[in-house]
Amino acid sequence: MPTDKTADTSIFERRESEARSYCRSFPTVFASASGSIMTARDGREYIDFLAGCSSLNYGHNDPDMKAALIDHISQDGIAHGLDMYTVQKAAFLDAFERRILKPRGMDYKVMMTGPTGTNAVEAAIKLARKVTGRRNIVAFTNAFHGMTMGSLALTGNSGKREGAGGGSLADVTHMPFENAMGDKDTLEYIEWVLENPSSGMDDPAAFIVEPVQGEGGLNAASKDWLQGIQRLARRHGALFIIDDIQAGIGRTGSYFSTEEFGLDPDMITQAKSFSGMGLPLAALLIKPEHDIWKPAEHNGTFRGNTHAFVTARVALDKFWADDAFQNDVQRKGEILRQRLAGIAALVPGAALKGRGMMRGIDVGSGELAGRICATCFENGLIIETSGAHDEVVKVLAALTIPDDIFTKGLDILEAAVRDATGSGRIAAE
Amino acid sequence: MPTDKTADTSIFERRESEARSYCRSFPTVFASASGSIMTARDGREYIDFLAGCSSLNYGHNDPDMKAALIDHISQDGIAHGLDMYTVQKAAFLDAFERRILKPRGMDYKVMMTGPTGTNAVEAAIKLARKVTGRRNIVAFTNAFHGMTMGSLALTGNSGKREGAGGGSLADVTHMPFENAMGDKDTLEYIEWVLENPSSGMDDPAAFIVEPVQGEGGLNAASKDWLQGIQRLARRHGALFIIDDIQAGIGRTGSYFSTEEFGLDPDMITQAKSFSGMGLPLAALLIKPEHDIWKPAEHNGTFRGNTHAFVTARVALDKFWADDAFQNDVQRKGEILRQRLAGIAALVPGAALKGRGMMRGIDVGSGELAGRICATCFENGLIIETSGAHDEVVKVLAALTIPDDIFTKGLDILEAAVRDATGSGRIAAE
Amino acid sequence: MPTDKTADTSIFERRESEARSYCRSFPTVFASASGSIMTARDGREYIDFLAGCSSLNYGHNDPDMKAALIDHISQDGIAHGLDMYTVQKAAFLDAFERRILKPRGMDYKVMMTGPTGTNAVEAAIKLARKVTGRRNIVAFTNAFHGMTMGSLALTGNSGKREGAGGGSLADVTHMPFENAMGDKDTLEYIEWVLENPSSGMDDPAAFIVEPVQGEGGLNAASKDWLQGIQRLARRHGALFIIDDIQAGIGRTGSYFSTEEFGLDPDMITQAKSFSGMGLPLAALLIKPEHDIWKPAEHNGTFRGNTHAFVTARVALDKFWADDAFQNDVQRKGEILRQRLAGIAALVPGAALKGRGMMRGIDVGSGELAGRICATCFENGLIIETSGAHDEVVKVLAALTIPDDIFTKGLDILEAAVRDATGSGRIAAE
Amino acid sequence: MPTDKTADTSIFERRESEARSYCRSFPTVFASASGSIMTARDGREYIDFLAGCSSLNYGHNDPDMKAALIDHISQDGIAHGLDMYTVQKAAFLDAFERRILKPRGMDYKVMMTGPTGTNAVEAAIKLARKVTGRRNIVAFTNAFHGMTMGSLALTGNSGKREGAGGGSLADVTHMPFENAMGDKDTLEYIEWVLENPSSGMDDPAAFIVEPVQGEGGLNAASKDWLQGIQRLARRHGALFIIDDIQAGIGRTGSYFSTEEFGLDPDMITQAKSFSGMGLPLAALLIKPEHDIWKPAEHNGTFRGNTHAFVTARVALDKFWADDAFQNDVQRKGEILRQRLAGIAALVPGAALKGRGMMRGIDVGSGELAGRICATCFENGLIIETSGAHDEVVKVLAALTIPDDIFTKGLDILEAAVRDATGSGRIAAE
Repeated sequence: MPTDKTADTSIFERRESEARSYCRSFPTVFASASGSIMTARDGREYIDFLAGCSSLNYGHNDPDMKAALIDHISQDGIAHGLDMYTVQKAAFLDAFERRILKPRGMDYKVMMTGPTGTNAVEAAIKLARKVTGRRNIVAFTNAFHGMTMGSLALTGNSGKREGAGGGSLADVTHMPFENAMGDKDTLEYIEWVLENPSSGMDDPAAFIVEPVQGEGGLNAASKDWLQGIQRLARRHGALFIIDDIQAGIGRTGSYFSTEEFGLDPDMITQAKSFSGMGLPLAALLIKPEHDIWKPAEHNGTFRGNTHAFVTARVALDKFWADDAFQNDVQRKGEILRQRLAGIAALVPGAALKGRGMMRGIDVGSGELAGRICATCFENGLIIETSGAHDEVVKVLAALTIPDDIFTKGLDILEAAVRDATGSGRIAAE
Repeated sequence: MPTDKTADTSIFERRESEARSYCRSFPTVFASASGSIMTARDGREYIDFLAGCSSLNYGHNDPDMKAALIDHISQDGIAHGLDMYTVQKAAFLDAFERRILKPRGMDYKVMMTGPTGTNAVEAAIKLARKVTGRRNIVAFTNAFHGMTMGSLALTGNSGKREGAGGGSLADVTHMPFENAMGDKDTLEYIEWVLENPSSGMDDPAAFIVEPVQGEGGLNAASKDWLQGIQRLARRHGALFIIDDIQAGIGRTGSYFSTEEFGLDPDMITQAKSFSGMGLPLAALLIKPEHDIWKPAEHNGTFRGNTHAFVTARVALDKFWADDAFQNDVQRKGEILRQRLAGIAALVPGAALKGRGMMRGIDVGSGELAGRICATCFENGLIIETSGAHDEVVKVLAALTIPDDIFTKGLDILEAAVRDATGSGRIAAE
Repeated sequence: MPTDKTADTSIFERRESEARSYCRSFPTVFASASGSIMTARDGREYIDFLAGCSSLNYGHNDPDMKAALIDHISQDGIAHGLDMYTVQKAAFLDAFERRILKPRGMDYKVMMTGPTGTNAVEAAIKLARKVTGRRNIVAFTNAFHGMTMGSLALTGNSGKREGAGGGSLADVTHMPFENAMGDKDTLEYIEWVLENPSSGMDDPAAFIVEPVQGEGGLNAASKDWLQGIQRLARRHGALFIIDDIQAGIGRTGSYFSTEEFGLDPDMITQAKSFSGMGLPLAALLIKPEHDIWKPAEHNGTFRGNTHAFVTARVALDKFWADDAFQNDVQRKGEILRQRLAGIAALVPGAALKGRGMMRGIDVGSGELAGRICATCFENGLIIETSGAHDEVVKVLAALTIPDDIFTKGLDILEAAVRDATGSGRIAAE
Repeated sequence: MPTDKTADTSIFERRESEARSYCRSFPTVFASASGSIMTARDGREYIDFLAGCSSLNYGHNDPDMKAALIDHISQDGIAHGLDMYTVQKAAFLDAFERRILKPRGMDYKVMMTGPTGTNAVEAAIKLARKVTGRRNIVAFTNAFHGMTMGSLALTGNSGKREGAGGGSLADVTHMPFENAMGDKDTLEYIEWVLENPSSGMDDPAAFIVEPVQGEGGLNAASKDWLQGIQRLARRHGALFIIDDIQAGIGRTGSYFSTEEFGLDPDMITQAKSFSGMGLPLAALLIKPEHDIWKPAEHNGTFRGNTHAFVTARVALDKFWADDAFQNDVQRKGEILRQRLAGIAALVPGAALKGRGMMRGIDVGSGELAGRICATCFENGLIIETSGAHDEVVKVLAALTIPDDIFTKGLDILEAAVRDATGSGRIAAE
């Protein structure tokens, strides 16, 4: 109706750049959100299985974070303080030390980079080059580390790389991720390249790896493979960097995605759910011996977002004071695995991907995956694809999602898969 | 005293990276801030002449922005929505169109980049390369455009460039800024380089210029010089990009820093004070004919910070609905000019720098400038240096600063200059 | 003796750069050479199993080439004519067309590059980039294509790459050569990388491959593998470049090293034995449709060495007018294979490498290979190593070597291997 | 006539790459050459004012060089010996030490690079980077240093740079040559860039400069300017490299082109006339303390061309044993200057360029210069243009040219200028 403006998106079409993307998959205008439910301007509710691409691991607008933030703002708490010392940053660092580092026996310095994941990655590769005096960084096939020029050089996707318009994306070698070469042992290949002085590869400053490749199709590396990469890095004088931006902060069932793998990374990136509430915040964790930055050698106006420190502290105290949350995430991850296994069985050739609460189904084609997600949206579920060909339907629900909503969302997904593949609904009953 | 923890900064020293910097100049722990006053944990108040490096043009915690943001949070307004359509983004875009673009007869698409200035710059240079099919970007001596690898390539400062650890910073040509070569006409030189097919310079995709170089020492380009650069860009098939991150959004006395210069840039970057309240937000304004991005060709998790849209909309409606604010900024800029002229006269060889409310004094040495700022801080004034040698004492007060506080801050500055230069206090009386 | 200056190398030590190398393996001063014999200043004769690293396929100072060159010089024939038209170049091109191109049904333009192999390679990669509008070149592990910056980027050896002192060696992807990954099918891996849009590899302008890797350890690619590379190149819009500098011009038993492989390369490089007499000459053969150079777009003062055209024409008429020479090379190649097989059997774990008259033995370590070669030299045989670890003893005898000298040289080699490995001489009898 | 094949160039059109260039300016087929006369297949004689672009400073086929080379070949002297020790190389080095280095009090190591100028330049920049640990090389506007990727990065001409097809030409900063900016002092500008830590220029490994820019338009740097560049290099920890490939070896009136300038370069390149007879030969002279190459770290099959050593030794003994030759070159250079001054007066706005026997006239347009050269060729004179716009008619006669032939050539040039500019021939009489 002409007088109903709820579906009006003309301002976006008129004024927002063509670079916009998620809005094309979810063509409605959202107004509010709470927990795992997003509500559009027209009042329609959607279950959120995207969770800000893993930026909302604790759900939308956690009441404790809200309360703390409103309190902070009401009292004229610092909103922007560059990288000055603030009581809010102190409280956050203290909580991070008590809740995360100490219980895990980890000793890292926290570098507040610009509040985006790509900035944390840029800081990591700059520092690795400074520390080692080498330039080459090893990244992996299907990797996604960001869209600024330094991070883009690490990113595998050719479409995204072409966005650089031909600007220089040098000093990176891409190596095959685990299982990238079918049944071939990629570690063995990488080792051969490193140890062959005529392989054409320059000595690496660092290896940077996502334990579960989020954008790359939910490829989950094994403990053995990651230990192998760390061992190769050590042996060849390179640093070992975990990019935990998407897989970390509880997503796989523990705070860091590789806690049970016995690794000892030189740096770890943090972003996305780091602030707890989806506010921009990123950091680079650095082993003290590598923290050789000179003051301001990497800086940025918004490094250290004080509002985000407030919510992040709440998140640390609320969810990481004991094992309860972590155990519940693991329980839900197992539910998810079982449900997806059942759904995958409906699609010939489909494969389960991922780990913990970061799982999906490779349905074999981007076209099919896209159709499934579109049907889900029509039925009230926000869900997206990933992978080199967008062939993986990816479930990134909030870790706090109530069981009933989780089940309801998975039911919508299953129905959409049945629709798309012609498996009858009756068969499901 | 052991029991007084107000001066305790041990958590920062223990856990924060050595890259931290402003906290070294202002060694106290801040707790809250309002308008132009920052208050430390020990209750001491400081006048803020830094304003988040121009990120707080409207001062700390503007009451209307606070109210709107608290209201938004209370109602479970979206905190993080990727780049989906939201009512908050619609309201912001609508206000930006009505308050800024239309009154100035400007037609631009708004690209929500990652919420940092460097990300907006990265997007600009990627797009310029895509549009022109060329790689080379012309930046200027003393330029600062950010610290990620693409932006860093544009940045002049060698210390910051060395932070890249030798990673590739290619495809950029640095040209002399206006007055960089003493009394020589740099436009003439740049024209000669462009028109000489054997100058060694590849055809440029774009020129990117800060109308007032913030980090570079408050070098203010003239109307004629900027028009000359735009004309050279046009004649040589290159785009003309204004980086208005530090100088824009009212700082020089109008919304854009070059409004009265008759320019027609192909792109304009926005960040720092763009959100109004110091929250992370950045954008790239793009002429519609250049908006050739494919969906998600440049993306980022935190592009479009919904809290920031809320406060930014308030800022647009409150400060840019009529000329009152702008006129007041111009009035204050003139006060600042006069006071700084008087202060500069105390320092042999000192020179005034900058424009509008973005002014400073080149005192000839970084050592002297540093001593002046340190004395100011002891006396309750937050103020910083800039310039290639940190030789410029820079005043970046909030544009909303009350006259009495402004005067008080300038008095502290004047006294510090007298102290540092041995001009007697009596002479000042 | 002090008065005997035959062993005096002081002028070299005093005045020649430390970059000199072969003279360190063969520490005598040579005075003259004929066929397969080099004679030192002290009169001692050496059998030459190095043949100028395959630059002297027709032996030293072929009498017909000598006569033609002396005649040319005596008549004031052009010595240096830039790239002007000369009767000598015409005669050479005519012979190349009649003796090489036409009989093989090949249609190529001949580009006279600077007279070094590296220059022909540089021309090839520049042209491939111009033709395709892409930048990335695929080269292979253990490849050697030259030492100038463009060619060096293609070269695998890290020691040689480090010689660039950190200068940019960008826009190249190294892929595993056949058998580089043990029993894994490298074609399959390369195909996967090319077809995975997120592998991190930019679309290639060209693949450049040595059919037998000379410096890389005499790795001989199979017909199937080379056809596979050509097929991948075609399918992905890349040019297919054969670098035949070391393996071509008869070395493997036919003029081009891949004549019987059914390939159709877009470009072929020629150097080393191209002039017949070891004079500097190089060329790039280009399919006519790719010959899009503008005049002088790649040039060089010494492109087209007229003395070399004279000797090259003699070589074409003398050795390539019929099959006799080619058949004899193949016969000798088989002799070589049999003798090396016998010698390899003396070294536990040793492997035969190479093809035709370009063969060697991988003795497993550079130390052992070096000792063998040193012993050979003491006994009058010039022979060198190759491979990433200098682990291959390489026989590159002149193709014209008389059978008795060939046998004598192989006997010296066998004896040296016996000495080095402790296999008794008696056992050899 | 169909049966007259003297004008037949079809084999070149059919088989030689479109990259060929000089043959287009001089469309005849040359057969022989002696001194300053080239003779075409049809018997027509041409005076040579190009001299192989300064590769034939001693003229074509010097009788003593011919005799020595024929003698060498007749006796089976080494034609190709890689970089082994040979009596011919020893004799050459000994002569170079006695005739060139010692009399000038110079102590340099001689590195035999691949026998092309571009290879010597590549070696120089690689070594400068190794020595300093820095990457950036300063080259100058209008510079020409060669066409391989490393040298091309130094070369100013955009057409030639575009020949790289977009491949990476990084790590070079182009600075204005003397007088490149009209009456502005370019030294002052360069100093400002070097001393401003925010100029955007990375610390340089080296400055490389042609004392007279051959391809760039015969721009001759002054003693003061070159001393200034050397001083800046020293002060900033960079090496100072003279590229003497075109201007050296007698061309400006002394062996090195800067002998009277009191310079002390760290490296000097040699090529073009280095062999004396136009045979491919190049070298890099290196101060002993910088000769830190590891064996073979920069190599190449044709480094050290033994035939060229033979002729080069003759050239050193014949022309550089005393001052006679040098004095005669200076005398001719003065004749040339006077004649060109008279000719330049015929062209409004024309300017004299160059130094010694490396001079020309800037006639203001490439079209006019091209017409003049074409008319010269019709009248029996080989002469070429240079400069960014090919606007300089360049005289590069052999230094040994007899006075009568020199006068005759200059008369042809003068007549062509008169024709082209409409100055009557009568006026010339």
